[in-house]
Amino acid sequence: MVPHLKTALTGPINELEQRILDAMPVIERWFRLEWMEHTPPLYAAVDIRNAGFKLAPVDTDLFPGGWHNLSDDVLPLAVQAAQAAIEKICPEARNLLIVPENGTPSTLYLVSLARLEQIFRMAGLNVKFGSIDPALKRSTTYALPDGEALVFHPAQRTRYRLGLKQFDPCTILLNNDLAAGAPGILEDLHEQYLLPPLQAGWMVRRMSRHFRCYEEVSKRFGKLLGIDPWLIAPLFALCEQIDAPQGQEGLRDAVSAMLARLRRKYKEYGIAEKPFVVLKPDNASRGAGFAVVREASELAAANAGKASAALAALLAQGGDVIVQEGVLTQERLNEAVAEPVVNLIDRYVVGGYYRMRARASETDNLSGPDARYVPLAFDGHNRLPRAGAKPGASAPNRFYMYGVIARVALVAASYELEATDPQLLEIMA
Amino acid sequence: MVPHLKTALTGPINELEQRILDAMPVIERWFRLEWMEHTPPLYAAVDIRNAGFKLAPVDTDLFPGGWHNLSDDVLPLAVQAAQAAIEKICPEARNLLIVPENGTPSTLYLVSLARLEQIFRMAGLNVKFGSIDPALKRSTTYALPDGEALVFHPAQRTRYRLGLKQFDPCTILLNNDLAAGAPGILEDLHEQYLLPPLQAGWMVRRMSRHFRCYEEVSKRFGKLLGIDPWLIAPLFALCEQIDAPQGQEGLRDAVSAMLARLRRKYKEYGIAEKPFVVLKPDNASRGAGFAVVREASELAAANAGKASAALAALLAQGGDVIVQEGVLTQERLNEAVAEPVVNLIDRYVVGGYYRMRARASETDNLSGPDARYVPLAFDGHNRLPRAGAKPGASAPNRFYMYGVIARVALVAASYELEATDPQLLEIMA
Repeated sequence: MVPHLKTALTGPINELEQRILDAMPVIERWFRLEWMEHTPPLYAAVDIRNAGFKLAPVDTDLFPGGWHNLSDDVLPLAVQAAQAAIEKICPEARNLLIVPENGTPSTLYLVSLARLEQIFRMAGLNVKFGSIDPALKRSTTYALPDGEALVFHPAQRTRYRLGLKQFDPCTILLNNDLAAGAPGILEDLHEQYLLPPLQAGWMVRRMSRHFRCYEEVSKRFGKLLGIDPWLIAPLFALCEQIDAPQGQEGLRDAVSAMLARLRRKYKEYGIAEKPFVVLKPDNASRGAGFAVVREASELAAANAGKASAALAALLAQGGDVIVQEGVLTQERLNEAVAEPVVNLIDRYVVGGYYRMRARASETDNLSGPDARYVPLAFDGHNRLPRAGAKPGASAPNRFYMYGVIARVALVAASYELEATDPQLLEIMA
Repeated sequence: MVPHLKTALTGPINELEQRILDAMPVIERWFRLEWMEHTPPLYAAVDIRNAGFKLAPVDTDLFPGGWHNLSDDVLPLAVQAAQAAIEKICPEARNLLIVPENGTPSTLYLVSLARLEQIFRMAGLNVKFGSIDPALKRSTTYALPDGEALVFHPAQRTRYRLGLKQFDPCTILLNNDLAAGAPGILEDLHEQYLLPPLQAGWMVRRMSRHFRCYEEVSKRFGKLLGIDPWLIAPLFALCEQIDAPQGQEGLRDAVSAMLARLRRKYKEYGIAEKPFVVLKPDNASRGAGFAVVREASELAAANAGKASAALAALLAQGGDVIVQEGVLTQERLNEAVAEPVVNLIDRYVVGGYYRMRARASETDNLSGPDARYVPLAFDGHNRLPRAGAKPGASAPNRFYMYGVIARVALVAASYELEATDPQLLEIMA
């Protein structure tokens, strides 16, 4: 089901990877049964880290950009998946409205939107962009590097529907993470499909809820494979209100406890590396990024003004923070550390790319202004893993495993969206 | 939805092709609505001929071989389509039994089966081959050119199910056209999915029924596009029992009448070529192949022993024959005449290849022992047609059009299978 992409890591596959490959029919059936009960988000991008001994998602984006990073080869796969999604959601659809991020778009974001538009246009829909940015008063044309252009129109609300002048969409595709809160213009659109749903926006979404759902799903998935679920899930803890009294001490204790847990786990598995944790704001749409911490004492040092810029910003921002197990990445591309990103449309893996930073170490956060992105092309040799083939007889489809972990995260995202679905909450209240 | 494959024909697209490209959203919506009402066959391969002024299917195979002709690039697309099909038919499936053709398999057929097995294995099923050939008494291993092997097991029937020892499939995939009639071993399997259904076998199927359904569908599709349906459909007439008294005169009259109709059509459209017809046994599983006829007098000559071998064989075989409009093919590959074949799984176009014969002319039948097959690779340039782009601004995705015509034939096949569905016939009786 998953395209065979050229991963940078070409070494022999390890025990965990072999276990996943061997269990393919069981895994695929498990996903089919999950999707009978749960609805996947319309699209997602999952950041994966492969530490060799473990393989885990570290972030699940429900409003993915970066579509231009998909290689040309995988475009038909994305189009076919979009087609399958439309058939399921609204077969009678003619028009799709994409709601982009507010503000003046960067060129890269425009190129990503152009690719997203292309995918749904090739799937057979009329696609237009409707901005909900109150600052956008009239239709605005943005030039693309290839000489083409995209037009953002101000989205218009009628009593029950969102659309444009003479463009009435069946489905509204949000590519806006609603960090500032859901505007009234998007509320009570009961006649149209709004995808992903409003509660996928960062005014509702929390990292900790996603990883709690992931933990639950990974336990069941680990049982299916007969493995310790830790091998596919990052440990995490939530520290609330780090700017409240005793908040920073609580954070320091949580970091200490997490590092101690990780040292025990590393010892159990005979891993010689030094564990580390990553601190992330629970509400990822707030300004501060992630901070890597190797010792609890770094937090004390931070109070003395000796922290990294990232840690200082995170502490200054305050609020809720998650302490997440740091997962090493063994993937390298031209000697730079690389993190695979897996793109999904509906329940299908449609491609992937590497996010990399030239000067980053294997523990660093790879998002940032100097990050570079490299599309993963299909492996032209098509040596897909054969069940029962001797090890080494065929190149392993490492990307299959990344796709499996990304889909486990996708299942977790569907649980997460159910847990915050206002209609389901109303029924249960 | 359709992969952009490198077609050999790279000239400017003509009026008909432009009409199809422009109507893409309307076309894709039409297919979605058709598939809400009708069930596509599990798989198919459609032979297309592109005469420039017209684009038409000339054969729809419901038990396709030639899977090895799909290029490696399109494999993930085939796997994803297979996954979508399984999800729809039997999400709980673990096991799939493929029923191959009876008799000793040729190497090419084995290679095709290996690819088919790979597609469904990658989609997450356990796949085995169960032969219904009474001559196959025990499991038999056939070597593949790549050093691997395929094993045919004798299929075993219990009261309600077909399977192997310790292999109980949810779905049975027929890759056997049942030319000799449906054996009892396949009847009344009400607990399992048998795909395509028994009535897709040649003991029930007739060319004329398929093309009658295609005619009906192409009229509606032509109306949708605002074109003369003749531009996408081959004219045909059925001559019953050509070996009965006056049978051959009836055939000659039908050929005369068809050639006259074609001359009028050619005149109407200003086509300078000379029309021709193709005679085909209505039951294509009988021994004789197709015969090209340019003048009704060739049939009289045949009685004097001066016919082509193909025509002589067809006349000698007797039975029902269809007189089908011959459609020229403009596609050339290395100067040889080529005919695109479009492969479909469920409702999805998953790839295609060229069938070609070095010494064939543009009117000839391209199937035959010296036929060669060339996979169509993805067009690496990914210059998908942009709506509203200036002509010539992007290379046309000619394969999209072939995929559209193939899918119109797929809709016709679904009508055809409904018309012969024993359960539907019982309800209607």
